Amino acid sequence: MRDHTVPVDAPGRSRGLGVGEFHLAGGFWGGLQAANTAATLRHCLEWMERLGWIANFDRVARGDTGGERPGWQFSDSEIYKLMEALAWEYGRTGSTWAEETLATLTERVAAAQDEDGYLNTCYGHAGQADRYSDLSSGHELYCTGHLLQAAVARLRTVGEDKLVEVARQAADEVCRTFGADGRDGICGHPEIEVGLAELGRALQEPRYTEQARLFIERRGRGTLKPVTLLDAAYFQDDLPVREADAWRGHAVRALYLAAGAVDVAVDTGDAELLNAVERQWDRSVSRRTYLTGGMGSRHQDEGFGEDWELPPDRAYCETCAGIASNMVSWRLYLATGDVKYADLMERTFYNVIAASPAEDGRSFFYANPLHQRSAAADVRPDEVNPRAEGGVRAPWFDVSCCPTNLARTLASWQAYAASVEGEQVSLLQYAAGDMRIAMGEGEELVLRITTAYPQEGTVRIEALEVPDRPISLRLRVPHWADGARLATDTGAQAVDPGWASPQGPLRPGAVIVLRLPVEPRFTWPDERIDAVRGCVAVERGPLVLCAESTDLPNEEAIETFRVDPSIPPRAEREGAIVQATMAAATSTPGALPYGPNPRRFDAAATLELGLIPYHRWAQRGSTAMRVFLPTV
Amino acid sequence: MRDHTVPVDAPGRSRGLGVGEFHLAGGFWGGLQAANTAATLRHCLEWMERLGWIANFDRVARGDTGGERPGWQFSDSEIYKLMEALAWEYGRTGSTWAEETLATLTERVAAAQDEDGYLNTCYGHAGQADRYSDLSSGHELYCTGHLLQAAVARLRTVGEDKLVEVARQAADEVCRTFGADGRDGICGHPEIEVGLAELGRALQEPRYTEQARLFIERRGRGTLKPVTLLDAAYFQDDLPVREADAWRGHAVRALYLAAGAVDVAVDTGDAELLNAVERQWDRSVSRRTYLTGGMGSRHQDEGFGEDWELPPDRAYCETCAGIASNMVSWRLYLATGDVKYADLMERTFYNVIAASPAEDGRSFFYANPLHQRSAAADVRPDEVNPRAEGGVRAPWFDVSCCPTNLARTLASWQAYAASVEGEQVSLLQYAAGDMRIAMGEGEELVLRITTAYPQEGTVRIEALEVPDRPISLRLRVPHWADGARLATDTGAQAVDPGWASPQGPLRPGAVIVLRLPVEPRFTWPDERIDAVRGCVAVERGPLVLCAESTDLPNEEAIETFRVDPSIPPRAEREGAIVQATMAAATSTPGALPYGPNPRRFDAAATLELGLIPYHRWAQRGSTAMRVFLPTV
Repeated sequence: MRDHTVPVDAPGRSRGLGVGEFHLAGGFWGGLQAANTAATLRHCLEWMERLGWIANFDRVARGDTGGERPGWQFSDSEIYKLMEALAWEYGRTGSTWAEETLATLTERVAAAQDEDGYLNTCYGHAGQADRYSDLSSGHELYCTGHLLQAAVARLRTVGEDKLVEVARQAADEVCRTFGADGRDGICGHPEIEVGLAELGRALQEPRYTEQARLFIERRGRGTLKPVTLLDAAYFQDDLPVREADAWRGHAVRALYLAAGAVDVAVDTGDAELLNAVERQWDRSVSRRTYLTGGMGSRHQDEGFGEDWELPPDRAYCETCAGIASNMVSWRLYLATGDVKYADLMERTFYNVIAASPAEDGRSFFYANPLHQRSAAADVRPDEVNPRAEGGVRAPWFDVSCCPTNLARTLASWQAYAASVEGEQVSLLQYAAGDMRIAMGEGEELVLRITTAYPQEGTVRIEALEVPDRPISLRLRVPHWADGARLATDTGAQAVDPGWASPQGPLRPGAVIVLRLPVEPRFTWPDERIDAVRGCVAVERGPLVLCAESTDLPNEEAIETFRVDPSIPPRAEREGAIVQATMAAATSTPGALPYGPNPRRFDAAATLELGLIPYHRWAQRGSTAMRVFLPTV
Repeated sequence: MRDHTVPVDAPGRSRGLGVGEFHLAGGFWGGLQAANTAATLRHCLEWMERLGWIANFDRVARGDTGGERPGWQFSDSEIYKLMEALAWEYGRTGSTWAEETLATLTERVAAAQDEDGYLNTCYGHAGQADRYSDLSSGHELYCTGHLLQAAVARLRTVGEDKLVEVARQAADEVCRTFGADGRDGICGHPEIEVGLAELGRALQEPRYTEQARLFIERRGRGTLKPVTLLDAAYFQDDLPVREADAWRGHAVRALYLAAGAVDVAVDTGDAELLNAVERQWDRSVSRRTYLTGGMGSRHQDEGFGEDWELPPDRAYCETCAGIASNMVSWRLYLATGDVKYADLMERTFYNVIAASPAEDGRSFFYANPLHQRSAAADVRPDEVNPRAEGGVRAPWFDVSCCPTNLARTLASWQAYAASVEGEQVSLLQYAAGDMRIAMGEGEELVLRITTAYPQEGTVRIEALEVPDRPISLRLRVPHWADGARLATDTGAQAVDPGWASPQGPLRPGAVIVLRLPVEPRFTWPDERIDAVRGCVAVERGPLVLCAESTDLPNEEAIETFRVDPSIPPRAEREGAIVQATMAAATSTPGALPYGPNPRRFDAAATLELGLIPYHRWAQRGSTAMRVFLPTV
């Protein structure tokens, strides 16, 4: 029933796992995935029914499009992201509910498709603006891109079906309208590029890849009509993709565009384009990325800032930007095999993506700041949150891109856990469970992975079944794992960050144990990051830790404690303990908070301050929080 | 021709100077005022004619209001602010051009006024939305408030005229529509409050004061329809004025509202309301204000941030917010006599307001950040700037509130230089020139002030004419002036910051010399201001200094020099020299800018780094800049 074709790979090159190839045995990601299954998928469906976003399709189908339409112009995309999530969910678990729900949604969506394949509930029908009349803000091609990605999830789990047919017609309409002989336009919000490229690859349809290429090449010539108070960089229309050195403007747009560019570069053999995205990744990750892996330094445009502009308090770090960052890193990893991309993915998985959902899977962070100055007001469970501010998880948002994006990402997490390059398997993300990997010729490699990672650092891999030919295994040693060790039947050895490979081909029954050091450690920011000068962070394995005012005498203390970095942090439960001074803040004299002398707070008391994993912050109620801890 | 009634005072209380009471003899403010006279006033007029903002009035007058209307819905206010500037200009200088231009504008504005007094070019006519149909964003009452302030400038310089009559009719229409028995509404952008209160005071018309009071009291009950992505705090509709502890939301709105509240509190004897604004000033100045006096930490809503949220790079510090801050501080000074308000005004005058205009008075900063990471792109002199980003002065903006606000403020700067409390004169701002102050009974106090302040710290005051009764003089000693001295005929003495008063009544011919220490000095931020931890600033007298990349080996060095605070800064020309280390920035290993060890840059060379006054930054071309200097 579930086949093993996989997302986002290309034949003959590195591929990720099929979502059915890795059965998690609980653990960190198993837990998040269970909440997604049990709650988030239904939660998204219920909210979108309640708000009328799904009924928009029914209204188009009945020709009842006059009057006010619920939702933003891009609300169709949320239904498509949920459909993608349901497709992965069914592919992974065989859930009848997921399959039936997807089928129903497919019917409702298909009924709204115009004769010629155009499919959008906001434009092009009676009482609506014309098709493609506002490419800057209309988001029609953006929505279509998400439709195509949903169809690809279907292709990679069950094969052709009605959703794929709907997507094919929609893609054909896009190619007719915006092809080489058609309209010379692009969409204000990239996404059609990656959607077309993925669908082209999955269906082996070069027309779609070519259309994606056209959209990529057309970008950066300033053809999009400016939006009030935002410039061309906002939607990456300031510079051609292959000329840019860094990501800029709206983070999700920049990253979806980069993801599509990698797909096009790989499938057209365009090394220059691939190199451009690698260059952008290097510059943006080394100068415009948060310790959590979060991207987006500005609320104003949900965008990247300049180099070194990384304020922890006003960090936007949108959940969707974390997801989009992983889309780019995943593609670059598959294209190049460079372990650094998988390293960043792990960081982003644990500290952006995992931070978003509440434990019950029914409320979400949209923004993921690294410093919350005062506890946010609580959000009512039945209220749409008008703002994307950080500090409190909300059940739904006015612009509600994150919950469905999270749903599709969690439903397909397995895909990113390992990659297969011919006769080599690379383990990328560690979690307990059984991997049953198709190795060609009808044979499977079966690995049993036992670990309590990231709580503990030991990962035990047992080869239960191995094809009867030389298969090699390599294990990612994270960049922070100084002092890692690898043990096999033949002995143990120290391994450096990067790749660790047991010697020789894998034998059935072989047991490999990777020991990663997950003691808490101090991490220091580059001196050029002004906003966290004089601070240190604490990490533990792949987890960024944080201090919450819940563990301090009062909320204001989030600004007045000072950590002593001469005393190493020590492990405690899931987090760590650091030695701190609780200071009595003495106001500067005079009206302004600036004075003639460097002022050190008066140490009033020392305390052992408990830190928790960042992804769990605000789970105990609304709180003030910080990741970067000022030092004494 | 010019009388000596003054802005914003109340009979029997402290008053500021009439704009004609102080003739500047060049100097810092004389120079800025000359550029305003020679260039800015005409510049604003030309731009608003070119863009059709003034012609909007003609179109209403001819009944030709169908079709697209140039300018934002609040563009009328820019014409009114220019008219206010022209009124002060004529009052101060007797300029025929100013008087004739004002007369012409008054005719054009008056011709657009409806029969019942309503006056707005965007609403209420054929093809336009209904009057007051969008109180949240329509800005009609905001525009009217500026009209009333223009009329007050006229009343305080020449008395009743046509502009005053237009304003009176407009105010009457507002009172009829929004009075106690009328519509229970408020304007999304405060300004009508201060306009009505000022007009009520100037005309001794209690109805206007009462209407201002009603608008103040109605605020903070969440009656304004929310604007996308912004909450009620954005327009201060979250909390009643008398209950709030700090300013929040859009800075200019918060401050215009506070200014109106002080006027109402003073004129109705409402001590609780006055105390509320004093409390808000204390909290906001001590925790939400930049070293420059700038206010507004966020671009997103042009607004205040939370306590201690003061990023130098993304500081908004809108020029208009500096002007509005001085409107509030001025009123609080007149109401309480507390010198701290005049201290903040000086800081804001020199480091926000004076920073905005280019030397030629034809381009302006809208935002005034304290850190520019990379040189901004140049702006063409004939282009409307779409964005309010910092880094480059632009001739005009899409939302162009700052140039005309600056014009009216510079044209009336004299008003704030001294105050008169019965038989006492308080010198507040130091500048060379002759003060000829009406002291009642037809008598004048004439003071000749000689100084090169702020370049030098000596202020010489000679009493040329003194009324034949005891007149006392007091001099503001700025809060930073540790070591100031006051010399009179009877000897010299050290004086503390606050007030310095020569002993006994002033005698004709008396000479008083105040010596303020204007050597450069280090200034340290409160430890709770995260964004500038580990940094020091340099000030010189009232001037905040800054480093520009123009004076560094390259633009990136703005992030890598480190100042040695053990070596005091020394004076050089207008600025200072500090001892710095030029460091070779070594990247952190790995992809991300975070690493296992605290990284100190390798000192590559030491240099003497020249600092210039902040208000002059980017005068030598586009540049990277910072006020807060990281220390070694």
